[in-house]
Amino acid sequence: MGFRYATVYARIRKAKKDDVALIVSDQPAAGAAVFTTNVVKAAPVLLAQNHLKASRGRVSAILINAGNANCATRTGDAVALETCRAVAAALGVPVNQVLPASTGVIGVELDGALITKVVPKLKRALSADKFGDLAKAIVTTDLVPKIATAEVSLSGGVIRIAGTTKGSGMIQPRMATTLGFIMTDASVPAPLLKVLTAQANENSYDRISVDGDTSTNDMLVVLANGASGVKVTANDLPLFREALGRVAQDLAIQIARDGEGARKLIMIQVSGAADPASAAQIARSIANSPLVKTAIAGSDPNWGRIICAAGYSGVKFDPRQVDIALQGTLVCSRGLAVDFKDAALKKRLGEPECRIDFVIHGRARGQARFWTCDLTEGYIRINGSYRT
Amino acid sequence: MGFRYATVYARIRKAKKDDVALIVSDQPAAGAAVFTTNVVKAAPVLLAQNHLKASRGRVSAILINAGNANCATRTGDAVALETCRAVAAALGVPVNQVLPASTGVIGVELDGALITKVVPKLKRALSADKFGDLAKAIVTTDLVPKIATAEVSLSGGVIRIAGTTKGSGMIQPRMATTLGFIMTDASVPAPLLKVLTAQANENSYDRISVDGDTSTNDMLVVLANGASGVKVTANDLPLFREALGRVAQDLAIQIARDGEGARKLIMIQVSGAADPASAAQIARSIANSPLVKTAIAGSDPNWGRIICAAGYSGVKFDPRQVDIALQGTLVCSRGLAVDFKDAALKKRLGEPECRIDFVIHGRARGQARFWTCDLTEGYIRINGSYRT
Repeated sequence: MGFRYATVYARIRKAKKDDVALIVSDQPAAGAAVFTTNVVKAAPVLLAQNHLKASRGRVSAILINAGNANCATRTGDAVALETCRAVAAALGVPVNQVLPASTGVIGVELDGALITKVVPKLKRALSADKFGDLAKAIVTTDLVPKIATAEVSLSGGVIRIAGTTKGSGMIQPRMATTLGFIMTDASVPAPLLKVLTAQANENSYDRISVDGDTSTNDMLVVLANGASGVKVTANDLPLFREALGRVAQDLAIQIARDGEGARKLIMIQVSGAADPASAAQIARSIANSPLVKTAIAGSDPNWGRIICAAGYSGVKFDPRQVDIALQGTLVCSRGLAVDFKDAALKKRLGEPECRIDFVIHGRARGQARFWTCDLTEGYIRINGSYRT
Repeated sequence: MGFRYATVYARIRKAKKDDVALIVSDQPAAGAAVFTTNVVKAAPVLLAQNHLKASRGRVSAILINAGNANCATRTGDAVALETCRAVAAALGVPVNQVLPASTGVIGVELDGALITKVVPKLKRALSADKFGDLAKAIVTTDLVPKIATAEVSLSGGVIRIAGTTKGSGMIQPRMATTLGFIMTDASVPAPLLKVLTAQANENSYDRISVDGDTSTNDMLVVLANGASGVKVTANDLPLFREALGRVAQDLAIQIARDGEGARKLIMIQVSGAADPASAAQIARSIANSPLVKTAIAGSDPNWGRIICAAGYSGVKFDPRQVDIALQGTLVCSRGLAVDFKDAALKKRLGEPECRIDFVIHGRARGQARFWTCDLTEGYIRINGSYRT
């Protein structure tokens, strides 16, 4: 695909586990990204935004570290720049073609020398088959590395898309979340890639939440280096958009499934809202309700909490027009309880994937799909002692 | 004070514990209330709103049940009306002077006969010294009953205020929360009482959150029956407002302290925001962050999560102007880490009350105080099996 990857252990995190990774495109790629909307933005987020602007969407490399967010630190800006410079010099590319990305604890100084001194080692290790290592190096509290790929036949030939992402806590995108990197060997002009990235993000990273916490370091980057020699033509656009969207959504769902302490993936489908944004707002409110998430953890078909969470979402609707189904079983019809077999439904809610359907009857057709996970004691355990 | 109370066990909840309560004012009281802003409103909320309007703020009695929210039920409206009628007939007052209030599970039919048949017993049991029983009868998952009182010397004499409330889950007021009842023997005209109630609510029930879930049944009612013979004059207004506000805030803080699974009360003080509303918005965002709440549960001075939660609150501010202190110890100065003694602070965070100060430097003076609790495994245990 014309991309190479490398990872090393640079002693940023305590556990001896690769914590610095490099993605290199053999030829400068078109690059587009979406970033956190948090007003507190980590140094690498600010620098990556500047670099993308300065380079007009040309990206040669992404330098990533786990174990330290490089956010709210005295030396953050300098460290982000200095480490990008080291990579740029080693690869012989302009510094604004290097994007930095960090994840980990906030407010702890990141020693830039830990990274700059491993750059030569990273460069030597670069290899097209290290994509799996990359996925492993960027994770923090994740239990599993996360990868999604696609292969699409366009008019000019076959192109490939490969993405990886990390995250399982401090997850509520609102724009992009955590770190996500998607590479394709298709040839896509940077301005078009920007639009496609925003669209892909909207139905993926912007539709998941683990805990409602929008991180300071979120970024989703898409690189298209054209190594396949295949241009995405106007005719190919729907196919390519669909494939990119699918990879992004696949990655995002993997994050929700791997939410801190989660035992179940929850999919929430809202339909009949005034528009897709209202539907997403209702779905997000349900997804972020600790009462809904703990009920699902306990396999309790307590749908009253679902209609309650929708009711305070800020979206106006008539409760008497609402149906709710759990795992396909109708539990609330026109806002009122339905007789259902409690024991049978409880058993089905024990499955690793739970589906909540929230339907508003009427003429409106706005719908949205949203993913989250159940809230268990594990989340509390993980987050009660993260720094220690 | 001219108020009498009674409680009985009417078999609404499974546990044999009084679940119906009656508050009676010997003479019709001025009444004011604030209700949930959830678009899904329980039948008693809707009926209480109608009765207050129809009676122009005259209230003779409040009929309360725990164990069933009477929300999203087929017969809800009829049950709420029928039970108020039974009380009105027994007391010989107009039905619109009786306010209904319910708390408990959503979406389960409430059998009105369970209540109407205990009304004679309730009437016989009415007594001025049953205020403590009232506090006990209205609780659900609360660990402790909640009472606050005040006595104020006004120009015309001494007046008393006594309030009780319930709630420890599905708590994020936004207007009023859960159930709160405040009685005073002062004489206050209904229109003025309405204003005072809204003000008292703003700095009490509207400044707490346990889990960010705004219930369908929230209501805070204030009754002023004038039994003391003391009128609240214009000169007395500041004193009375302060006392009413103090009782409401005391009750609200008791709810936060008794949050489901909570081991610690958290007080968040935000200052230097553009206005009080922005300060409250930042404080609410910090209070609702599961990451902040679990860090406090683990006595972890992880202030990065606090600035992160403020950053996604929707309020714009310059992170470089922010100071954060935990238990009075500065941990973040002008957006950057401060060297502090981790072990000593960890120990102090183990105390039953934790204070977070979030200060934005500059000319703005908007401030707000907000209360929440830590998030522990106990919350998960309680809510994973509420219905069962």
